[in-house]
Amino acid sequence: MLQIVGTAAGSAAMLHAMSVMGHAQGSTYSGPIKLDGAPEGTKVLVLGAGLAGLTAALELRAAGYEVEVLEFREKAGGRCWTLHSGDSYTELGGETQNVDFAEGNYLNPGPWRIPHYHHAILDYCRRLGVQLEPFIQKNYNTYLHRQDAFGGKPVRFKEIATDHRGHTSELLAKAVDQGKLDDMVTADDREALLESLKTVGVLNEKYEYVESLDTAYYRGYSKTPGGGLDAAPEPTAPIDLSTILDSRLWTWLATHESLNHQLTMFQPVGGMDQIARGFEREVGDLITYNAKVLSLQQDEDGVTVTWEDTGGGGQQTSTADYCVCTIPFSILGQIDHNLSGELSSVIDSMFYNGSVKWGLEFNRRFWEEDEHIYGGVSYTDLPITQISYPSTGYLSGGPAVLLGGYTWRGPNSFEFNAMTPQERLEVALEYGSRIHPQYRDEFKTGVSVSWHKVPWVLGCSGIWQDKDRDYEAAAKIDRRVVCAGEHISYLPAWQEGAILSSLDAITRLHDKIKNG
Amino acid sequence: MLQIVGTAAGSAAMLHAMSVMGHAQGSTYSGPIKLDGAPEGTKVLVLGAGLAGLTAALELRAAGYEVEVLEFREKAGGRCWTLHSGDSYTELGGETQNVDFAEGNYLNPGPWRIPHYHHAILDYCRRLGVQLEPFIQKNYNTYLHRQDAFGGKPVRFKEIATDHRGHTSELLAKAVDQGKLDDMVTADDREALLESLKTVGVLNEKYEYVESLDTAYYRGYSKTPGGGLDAAPEPTAPIDLSTILDSRLWTWLATHESLNHQLTMFQPVGGMDQIARGFEREVGDLITYNAKVLSLQQDEDGVTVTWEDTGGGGQQTSTADYCVCTIPFSILGQIDHNLSGELSSVIDSMFYNGSVKWGLEFNRRFWEEDEHIYGGVSYTDLPITQISYPSTGYLSGGPAVLLGGYTWRGPNSFEFNAMTPQERLEVALEYGSRIHPQYRDEFKTGVSVSWHKVPWVLGCSGIWQDKDRDYEAAAKIDRRVVCAGEHISYLPAWQEGAILSSLDAITRLHDKIKNG
Repeated sequence: MLQIVGTAAGSAAMLHAMSVMGHAQGSTYSGPIKLDGAPEGTKVLVLGAGLAGLTAALELRAAGYEVEVLEFREKAGGRCWTLHSGDSYTELGGETQNVDFAEGNYLNPGPWRIPHYHHAILDYCRRLGVQLEPFIQKNYNTYLHRQDAFGGKPVRFKEIATDHRGHTSELLAKAVDQGKLDDMVTADDREALLESLKTVGVLNEKYEYVESLDTAYYRGYSKTPGGGLDAAPEPTAPIDLSTILDSRLWTWLATHESLNHQLTMFQPVGGMDQIARGFEREVGDLITYNAKVLSLQQDEDGVTVTWEDTGGGGQQTSTADYCVCTIPFSILGQIDHNLSGELSSVIDSMFYNGSVKWGLEFNRRFWEEDEHIYGGVSYTDLPITQISYPSTGYLSGGPAVLLGGYTWRGPNSFEFNAMTPQERLEVALEYGSRIHPQYRDEFKTGVSVSWHKVPWVLGCSGIWQDKDRDYEAAAKIDRRVVCAGEHISYLPAWQEGAILSSLDAITRLHDKIKNG
Repeated sequence: MLQIVGTAAGSAAMLHAMSVMGHAQGSTYSGPIKLDGAPEGTKVLVLGAGLAGLTAALELRAAGYEVEVLEFREKAGGRCWTLHSGDSYTELGGETQNVDFAEGNYLNPGPWRIPHYHHAILDYCRRLGVQLEPFIQKNYNTYLHRQDAFGGKPVRFKEIATDHRGHTSELLAKAVDQGKLDDMVTADDREALLESLKTVGVLNEKYEYVESLDTAYYRGYSKTPGGGLDAAPEPTAPIDLSTILDSRLWTWLATHESLNHQLTMFQPVGGMDQIARGFEREVGDLITYNAKVLSLQQDEDGVTVTWEDTGGGGQQTSTADYCVCTIPFSILGQIDHNLSGELSSVIDSMFYNGSVKWGLEFNRRFWEEDEHIYGGVSYTDLPITQISYPSTGYLSGGPAVLLGGYTWRGPNSFEFNAMTPQERLEVALEYGSRIHPQYRDEFKTGVSVSWHKVPWVLGCSGIWQDKDRDYEAAAKIDRRVVCAGEHISYLPAWQEGAILSSLDAITRLHDKIKNG
């Protein structure tokens, strides 16, 4: 019935009916899964203790399975990872960085924020007692910056956003008012359209977007309202439309509006790895750490995994009836396995995205103290692409860490990847100081992670050569093995994708085990 | 020189020069004031221990003055006030409400949020060690609601915002593309304008705003992206423009964009009164509580204030050389005083705004659990005008308090004012349940404050009959007395206005004392 309703496109009443019925805006996650009735003595081996593996371990044990988890690293979490003060990290090639942040400061090299509609991970945070705080994504007082715009000086987001909205509203309102759009706008809609443009665009009675206290209330005052004598506010002049358009700073105006970035967003208090710590409290006893998988073989009787205890315990073997393999395909492709040819070719064809993140610690929060920026992200066309300010500890004294850059795909990641950590740091400081001149005076210490050099994943997230063609082969159960992780999801590089992928995989595996 | 630059309107380069020079976007507050060299033995009497009075006490004592503060209530803060679990409050007329919230829950009946550009109060929070957390003002997942739109059912903010932006961008882009605006848009601007509209409005290659995974990424999916098999997302159909316009839900689209509501905003952890508690830690020893001022007289020798110790200590007299009077004009007008005729007539002509706020406690966070709303504000044309969800304790179990309504001026405040607390509660539940049907099942307890019935201020904030005419008379020093508070500011009803008013008043008073 709803499909029929849905095809009556444009019918708001029908859409609304769907919404009321709870079907529109649906989520893939509708609460904790309940798997039960695992056949007595059935064992599942989980490879990898990232969020997909941890989820599988937690839910399969709850269903009654015997569960063993093998994890390459000395702790759980995988890319759900936080570099804390006192940590050290050795990247591929052997360069080691010692994290010299002040106590309590950290960098999330991987995921760093949780969208509000990522219901599964939010629910696991709740169940695991992981305390969340808002991640400030959109902050109107951050900067937009291009090297060739405004003489290379950053401009506040609120100015570009307000002025672009105001000028385009003015154009449309005037065109409508002058009758130029009479073939596109019905007479019935005309008045409300004009009124809405006046409201949204902050236009005056003549549909003009001009310098006034009204527009200053959105784009900023030259003198803010005060108290006592001489306290009246003064407006600023909008930037004219041609300058706004020519600056191309509008390219970032929709970034914060997407579902993945819409407020409210969250981060765990104390670092993203608090989620991994929460899982470890529940299933840490199932995990063997420092276990490097060498071989994954399955036959009609079961699954056999050979692994090396990198802590010095030599070669070991684990067997199970079934296996949930969350090892990234970048690594799995290098492991001896007898997975089907179809799955093998998908594993071999997936490449992994590069990404680089910097955590830079400064002696003081100059972005708050000097520039009144509390959390949020400044965007730039410099290779660092963005600077994000900490969404915690606002107005506190002492050193603080900002995200000094976050490259995402593209050639920049490869260039940074070729650098030593010290070189990467220097470049981030050089670029960042063009936006914040305080950088050089206030810099204390820093760390960077180039994901292509992270030994246990060799990249940031899986990229498909042909997702439509290959996805099902990767997701479906291969005899006794099912793969899961962010790479087998439609939310790649998000923790939610890893968890949903795992929940789906273990649900199907459980069903197969029970029902054949 | 800058004035000359400023008149070259539209010159972005010049504007930018101003911005770089630090003059644009200027604040009235540029850091802690330093008053020093108070003449030996000079005493200032401060009337009222709201934020204006507390600021005056703190800074005047630091300058070397002898300071005495008289406060009507049993604690400091004035309208910087929080009703905590276990508090009781008696309104004018004698009705007492006992606040039966669960431990730790609270309502801020007065100010409840701090904008990022309110530099003075943020700086006092920093100096006083008041811990802040983000106040979520804009949340794309909250509701917009009108009784006569969509059959009286609420619609998510993200849908109205995305669709209005998309449809208006489509209209403008098509008009530009068809050459209809050639007299308004230069050939140079044309391409960038079209491209910017495509980006901001999420239009397709033909400049259409249509159902697609692209638009769903902003307005919401019918099936969100998942993991594993059957995980591909599905789009929603946009609501058509006529329906959006007709609904008038767009009237709230600019609300969150104003400087007073732009992200990042803050609230003190644990309630707004933590600011008052911070001041009390510093100047509590200067304050006499339960002191009801009866008379304020000044002559050439000094200031004499007669007051009643409402704790039973009888009538008392305090004298000083000067006085900072932060008593709201609604109260001051009822006190015997010999202020100048000019000031007296301003005092008598100011009326005070009504406002009503409700704190409703529910057994669980159904807005989070059922509707995935974490903080933020839903707007409605019902008399409660808005519902705001707590910006703290996300995803926690146990009872939680939401702001069940916040009326602001207008006839609704008068109607609610005439009700008993129990009647007000019932009305808020009735209205709120039209937006959240869970209200009746989950309601636990509630409290409301109607500001016209608050005995010590008789209103929410001062309203001028003619601000341009009267403001200077209210702000300037009247022989030995200077008045201060939110009412004598260009940020009325905001704590920042009270503090800035006070800082300006005491700076002028100090100057007068030192330099005559």
